[in-house]
Amino acid sequence: MRDVAILGVGCTDVGEHWEMSIRDLLFKASRKAIDDTGLDDIRKIEGLYVGNMCSGLIQGQEHLGALMADVLGISGVPACKVEAACASGGMALHQGVKAIASGLQDFVLVAGVEKLSDASTPEATSALMMAEDSEYSAYVGASFVGLNALIHRLYMKEFGVRAEHIAAFAVNGHNNALNNQYAQYRFQTTAEKVLASPLVADPIHLLECAGNGDGAAALILCPLERAKEYSDEFIEVAASSVATDVFSLTERADMLSFNASRLAAERAYGSAKIGPQDIDVLEVHDAFTIVGTISIEDLGFVKKGEGAKFVHDGNISLDGKLPTNTFGGLKARGHPVGATGIYQIAELVWQLRGRAGKNQVEDAEIGLAQNVGGIGSTASVHILRRTW
Amino acid sequence: MRDVAILGVGCTDVGEHWEMSIRDLLFKASRKAIDDTGLDDIRKIEGLYVGNMCSGLIQGQEHLGALMADVLGISGVPACKVEAACASGGMALHQGVKAIASGLQDFVLVAGVEKLSDASTPEATSALMMAEDSEYSAYVGASFVGLNALIHRLYMKEFGVRAEHIAAFAVNGHNNALNNQYAQYRFQTTAEKVLASPLVADPIHLLECAGNGDGAAALILCPLERAKEYSDEFIEVAASSVATDVFSLTERADMLSFNASRLAAERAYGSAKIGPQDIDVLEVHDAFTIVGTISIEDLGFVKKGEGAKFVHDGNISLDGKLPTNTFGGLKARGHPVGATGIYQIAELVWQLRGRAGKNQVEDAEIGLAQNVGGIGSTASVHILRRTW
Repeated sequence: MRDVAILGVGCTDVGEHWEMSIRDLLFKASRKAIDDTGLDDIRKIEGLYVGNMCSGLIQGQEHLGALMADVLGISGVPACKVEAACASGGMALHQGVKAIASGLQDFVLVAGVEKLSDASTPEATSALMMAEDSEYSAYVGASFVGLNALIHRLYMKEFGVRAEHIAAFAVNGHNNALNNQYAQYRFQTTAEKVLASPLVADPIHLLECAGNGDGAAALILCPLERAKEYSDEFIEVAASSVATDVFSLTERADMLSFNASRLAAERAYGSAKIGPQDIDVLEVHDAFTIVGTISIEDLGFVKKGEGAKFVHDGNISLDGKLPTNTFGGLKARGHPVGATGIYQIAELVWQLRGRAGKNQVEDAEIGLAQNVGGIGSTASVHILRRTW
Repeated sequence: MRDVAILGVGCTDVGEHWEMSIRDLLFKASRKAIDDTGLDDIRKIEGLYVGNMCSGLIQGQEHLGALMADVLGISGVPACKVEAACASGGMALHQGVKAIASGLQDFVLVAGVEKLSDASTPEATSALMMAEDSEYSAYVGASFVGLNALIHRLYMKEFGVRAEHIAAFAVNGHNNALNNQYAQYRFQTTAEKVLASPLVADPIHLLECAGNGDGAAALILCPLERAKEYSDEFIEVAASSVATDVFSLTERADMLSFNASRLAAERAYGSAKIGPQDIDVLEVHDAFTIVGTISIEDLGFVKKGEGAKFVHDGNISLDGKLPTNTFGGLKARGHPVGATGIYQIAELVWQLRGRAGKNQVEDAEIGLAQNVGGIGSTASVHILRRTW
């Protein structure tokens, strides 16, 4: 089994891209990722993985693997779409890592793409609910935000946590997005403003939800032993791990912890031979403030029930103990579903390279990204490391 | 890199399964595949891949990986959906093979599932067209069968082939399906009846098209070196190869050959160190009679333009030179899109084990399965071998 490195990363702005289709977004991000490497010829790419969730329902387009090979002018290469709801990006990366680890391929392009703007609000609501149980949960009227609201309220009750503790997660994201040229929502906010924004599903406020946006992001992978030939700023993939949980939130023994995140993290720490205390910079899946909060706990940074206060006390800010979502997170960078897991990785790469501009975390050497699908039914955890 | 074996296979009937949902189909096929092995505990399974194309559009359900882990009672295991249009099954198998080849996993379950009966005819037409180019081809009114009809007519003109030569492919499939308990269309037909059936898109007749059906099929994979512990009838995966082609049929230099099939076959023959002359039993993707016909050529069995006459002369029948689609093929076994590539593999396994009943090909030792996505935009080629 071979070790794997990330050679290059690229992404589009996250936003409403009325002027671009899925193929345009994929092309733009991929081209930037390739240009970010020393690969002189795109035909060196031997495999493509595309993370995407909703293109079938929203664009009436599947088969994004072959489409993308065509868009890049390298038809012929093995290519497929990988889907694991909102964790499609992280899952696509996991498959790309396996392809190289197996020794079967040397240069692999992993992209994520989503275009939600093409959908009306009810369509987007239906599309996102495809991540949970259509036959039992959606059928009885549960929506994705509604189910997350159950967790949010239960968390507050169980741990005696106030609304502003949880809202703090959004404040951090918006602060960090201000300096991210790719972010969808580049404005600062406060816990007061978050809690004064309209309720989407009580107790979740509008400013606690990741918005609907369009975007694509891409990575170029290669064997670690060859990375130096093609980049002075390659980053090692020290661990790539995915796990699942009981599919439906309401059928789990415990709704306040995502077992998939715990499992994936445990395996990732094991394979990177490190622990939470070694992480310099973190990306977590804050589709809602409550999901970001619980994720901090699931990944082993604080005990269960202590996440909200940890966040509220400023620990995840750029100058805190655990700088988190340093480019804005899902909340403020935006959440183009199938691409989100790839944006997280690109942002970690910028941090570990020391290229995060005003949001640079000093001496960042090890980063962790957690990407969640459904309401915690799938999670991927990647640990990246600078080795130079 | 490790060699891979298939330990067990299982499938449901192909047909209109109004009584079963996607989860029920997945459960039934997977349970049968597990029971076909000596695995004493389903918790030995370390990874799941699910091939599916249309569940988002038709069932409003994505995230089939986590759903399936849940259905099997093994939530926790890494699981994802793999999509490559009608080649989703073959592509899922390819990923499963890579997972084991890499050394990362030992026991992997690969399933394919599709449920087309839930869609109305216009919905199913739209769903299938997601395999081709939504933005350019579907937008101008092209349908999946319409594009295949272009090839069909061009083939007849270019090679001076008559309609009954191409119709012969369907006759072979229906003959073979008669003894297949899982087949959707268990009746015999003749070239005359095929050509007397209604035109769907001139010159393609109804009896030249694979029907819309529901079904699931599953395989259990493990490292070849461990296969003997868990099955007396394991089959080696001698090659697993996928390739793509220019996405849109109408943008290709040559519409009468699928380059993805040629490429995937070339790589597969190379890695198995054999040639077409060594294949004892063949499964090709006859979504339409013309696709089956061209596939025989693309895989190197006859020269370009000679496929139709080769088939018409009886060479692909059970007692011919190249027994093909011995359980009925897409035409008569049925074509539950994302599951089709897995059905092909299950059927080859039965042949190589000597368990194909009345349709047994004598001394079958090496089999090849070709699964096509879109109009040849993706192809997978798997070569299976009995080593005992």
